[in-house]
Amino acid sequence: MRVALVYKKESESVAERVRRFLERISDVTVFSSPSTELEEFEALVIVGGDGTVLRTVQEIKNVPPTFVVNTGRVGIFSHANAEDFEDKLEKALESMEYESFMRIEAKVKGSILRALNEVSVLTHTPSRLLKFEICVDGELIEEIRSDGMIFSTPLGSTAYNLSSGGPIIDPKLEAVVITPVSPFRLGWRPWVVSGERTILAKIELREAVVVADGQKSIVIEPGESVEVKKSKYPVKFFKVEKRLERMSKKVRELT
Amino acid sequence: MRVALVYKKESESVAERVRRFLERISDVTVFSSPSTELEEFEALVIVGGDGTVLRTVQEIKNVPPTFVVNTGRVGIFSHANAEDFEDKLEKALESMEYESFMRIEAKVKGSILRALNEVSVLTHTPSRLLKFEICVDGELIEEIRSDGMIFSTPLGSTAYNLSSGGPIIDPKLEAVVITPVSPFRLGWRPWVVSGERTILAKIELREAVVVADGQKSIVIEPGESVEVKKSKYPVKFFKVEKRLERMSKKVRELT
Amino acid sequence: MRVALVYKKESESVAERVRRFLERISDVTVFSSPSTELEEFEALVIVGGDGTVLRTVQEIKNVPPTFVVNTGRVGIFSHANAEDFEDKLEKALESMEYESFMRIEAKVKGSILRALNEVSVLTHTPSRLLKFEICVDGELIEEIRSDGMIFSTPLGSTAYNLSSGGPIIDPKLEAVVITPVSPFRLGWRPWVVSGERTILAKIELREAVVVADGQKSIVIEPGESVEVKKSKYPVKFFKVEKRLERMSKKVRELT
Amino acid sequence: MRVALVYKKESESVAERVRRFLERISDVTVFSSPSTELEEFEALVIVGGDGTVLRTVQEIKNVPPTFVVNTGRVGIFSHANAEDFEDKLEKALESMEYESFMRIEAKVKGSILRALNEVSVLTHTPSRLLKFEICVDGELIEEIRSDGMIFSTPLGSTAYNLSSGGPIIDPKLEAVVITPVSPFRLGWRPWVVSGERTILAKIELREAVVVADGQKSIVIEPGESVEVKKSKYPVKFFKVEKRLERMSKKVRELT
Repeated sequence: MRVALVYKKESESVAERVRRFLERISDVTVFSSPSTELEEFEALVIVGGDGTVLRTVQEIKNVPPTFVVNTGRVGIFSHANAEDFEDKLEKALESMEYESFMRIEAKVKGSILRALNEVSVLTHTPSRLLKFEICVDGELIEEIRSDGMIFSTPLGSTAYNLSSGGPIIDPKLEAVVITPVSPFRLGWRPWVVSGERTILAKIELREAVVVADGQKSIVIEPGESVEVKKSKYPVKFFKVEKRLERMSKKVRELT
Repeated sequence: MRVALVYKKESESVAERVRRFLERISDVTVFSSPSTELEEFEALVIVGGDGTVLRTVQEIKNVPPTFVVNTGRVGIFSHANAEDFEDKLEKALESMEYESFMRIEAKVKGSILRALNEVSVLTHTPSRLLKFEICVDGELIEEIRSDGMIFSTPLGSTAYNLSSGGPIIDPKLEAVVITPVSPFRLGWRPWVVSGERTILAKIELREAVVVADGQKSIVIEPGESVEVKKSKYPVKFFKVEKRLERMSKKVRELT
Repeated sequence: MRVALVYKKESESVAERVRRFLERISDVTVFSSPSTELEEFEALVIVGGDGTVLRTVQEIKNVPPTFVVNTGRVGIFSHANAEDFEDKLEKALESMEYESFMRIEAKVKGSILRALNEVSVLTHTPSRLLKFEICVDGELIEEIRSDGMIFSTPLGSTAYNLSSGGPIIDPKLEAVVITPVSPFRLGWRPWVVSGERTILAKIELREAVVVADGQKSIVIEPGESVEVKKSKYPVKFFKVEKRLERMSKKVRELT
Repeated sequence: MRVALVYKKESESVAERVRRFLERISDVTVFSSPSTELEEFEALVIVGGDGTVLRTVQEIKNVPPTFVVNTGRVGIFSHANAEDFEDKLEKALESMEYESFMRIEAKVKGSILRALNEVSVLTHTPSRLLKFEICVDGELIEEIRSDGMIFSTPLGSTAYNLSSGGPIIDPKLEAVVITPVSPFRLGWRPWVVSGERTILAKIELREAVVVADGQKSIVIEPGESVEVKKSKYPVKFFKVEKRLERMSKKVRELT
């Protein structure tokens, strides 16, 4: 089997141990940074934190089944850590059992930004409001002044969406959560809409920055819009036991 | 076509006008209270408020396509009101275009409670906490002390779930929102889980009352559980234009 | 010095150890239940949980400086526990350094309910809304439908007020927090008003129960009102180091 | 009497009408922009929106009693508008009845930033977290990762604090509300602390910008701190009837 290994620079020594282990059971190619070539492998092993995972899969359309050796803080995508990866990794590659998780994509100024966690549209000037008009399949559901707006996947619901007051979404659902950041209004609610919907967010008042997974960004002008919908390219992660229970525990550990 | 007309006592005069209008275009049978016989009709017309709708459909498994002439306050299920029902009702019965909406059911002490909006499990003693253990498909996602717990459908997300701080859910999604009532803890979030899941809520500390749509209720003892899942019997409402936009407007009007 | 010792039945053995210790340094009178006679002592020692403290001081107008040996779960009022009370208690009685904390009182149907934590006005019928009109010094600040309304002291802000989404209030402030319980409205906020204000809460729609500190209660009818204001009789607790830091830690431990 | 008139450029024509009216009853000096000279007048009339008021008083230590003719959107500080200012302004200047409102000041890198609404400490890089350590009189009450932190006055509680989920504070109280912006944690609460306290906010991880009333700002580095406390220089506004009721209405109008 052809396996690709990608690692975060600061985790080089763990990556080296993972490489040596993998060589015994498969064919390994090592990448020290994300690459579109990763698409061509049968499995992907990432050594790093949640940020490394987000950066790596952002470059790839057809993500191979992925195993994460977590060396970071939160590790929401983690399968194992530097101490216990051997057994788990071997079993994963043997069984090749994985789950698919919805990603979203934002069309901005003709470009496409793909995201595993969320697309956020944020004011470019700290403490200065944007005005949003949000339409879902052409129906106006929200007009609001706020510092920003988060469009999150179920898997991303425990990231920036959580910070903005959004709910936790079962990754089995195909849905997008729409949550404003610091809305200047007495009342508002997050909306959870079907992954079959097309969302259009128009901004007014000043420049905004559209950010995918806290990584890539594009600046837009007042009057411009962002279109958000489900991507045709899900992410594949090797199976973990009791994913909901793990999510529940991870968010409790955030401090 | 065989149409059943159900009405709320206080709306008798509106119901009489609706009856006379219906007689011109169909065969009408009038019911002054909910009945299981309603199942046998081709269409159902309800004259009353949201409470009348909840009470009426609670009695029926196979709900015929339903049209609501709202005479109440909020009217989240409303198709028309006493002034403008004629055209809308005629068109609905002609086209017979309807949408199906998920209901949930709670298994409690061997009985089944069916709900269009929500099943709530509430402390029986005002200001005295319950303790909940919530499992989803056997995974423990929440252990919390609170006054209660709401299990809401998407359509019910703007009812008791909204009061308890829950998000608004697209009725196109098949999902259940789990939201605690006055949880005695610094941090918690509503969970939105797939309609394919089975939820088990075990209570401790004291008696609780399980309420379906604010109507029917069963008392349970410490140590007992409630099982919540999607019902096989959805509700059918005649189509309305821009349902999401209407939901957005309705919740803004709550005062 | 004349010291009164009050204890919770379940903590009798700890109370007995505290009594023996106290006898070496003062004159002790033991009470197995709350009593108005406690007013006449120079210091009060309570062995029990937060509930025991609330029940005990509710009976007394002029509360003597109080020391709490916590045998309960949360222990927000705790000075020491069964293992480490000796030194702390001795120092407290020597120095007699205490702090005063605001209480509130509710005038209901001619009676006065005094509360250290909160006065709550709750629906008497689970899942059935009340309607509230809240006036502060004659100014209408809130009209809202909800399951209830909490009027909390700063010290009580980490109790029922916290469950209902209210902020944490510095006990150095003389203020009342007004927080609705499950308000049926998109937007609302807790209000923090000066302890010099008089608050009037009028209920409509159905019966409500007015509860002081989860202990005493009075039922009121639709159209009736509750007047809430600062009590002339504060509570006195022996000094603790870093009270704010302790509050911060305690609320984090709630699970 | 010597009255100063300050106006926002876009409201020049209204300002001209106010000037002509004032000339009949007092001595008027016109300023087209904020100035420290305003301190020397007996009364101040501002024609503009809430932003104009914030900018104007930020320049002045000893603020004379101030009357606001609102030409802006929200008008939380408004006494009158372009249509009805004559009577109200005349009565205000006759009676000279005013109320004082607490301001806060932030010590940052040796400079002082004064604020009527709030001091906010915000991440300089959109979507990148800061880490905060918040001490109140030397007690550590909060360690949290977030996009920012708001320190608000009671009068400012309906501004940025409201957007971040904070409570509404009675302007009669001398208090500071501490509210995080998009905190990456399941649980947190706003804190309302006495105006007698000294608050210290230390930031980590990356650069932050300290902003007073959305106007003036200073950039700080990881490891640096901001000290926030009550200013010795309150603001004086001419009296309005039913201030709490007005606040309640204004926040409801935010859309």
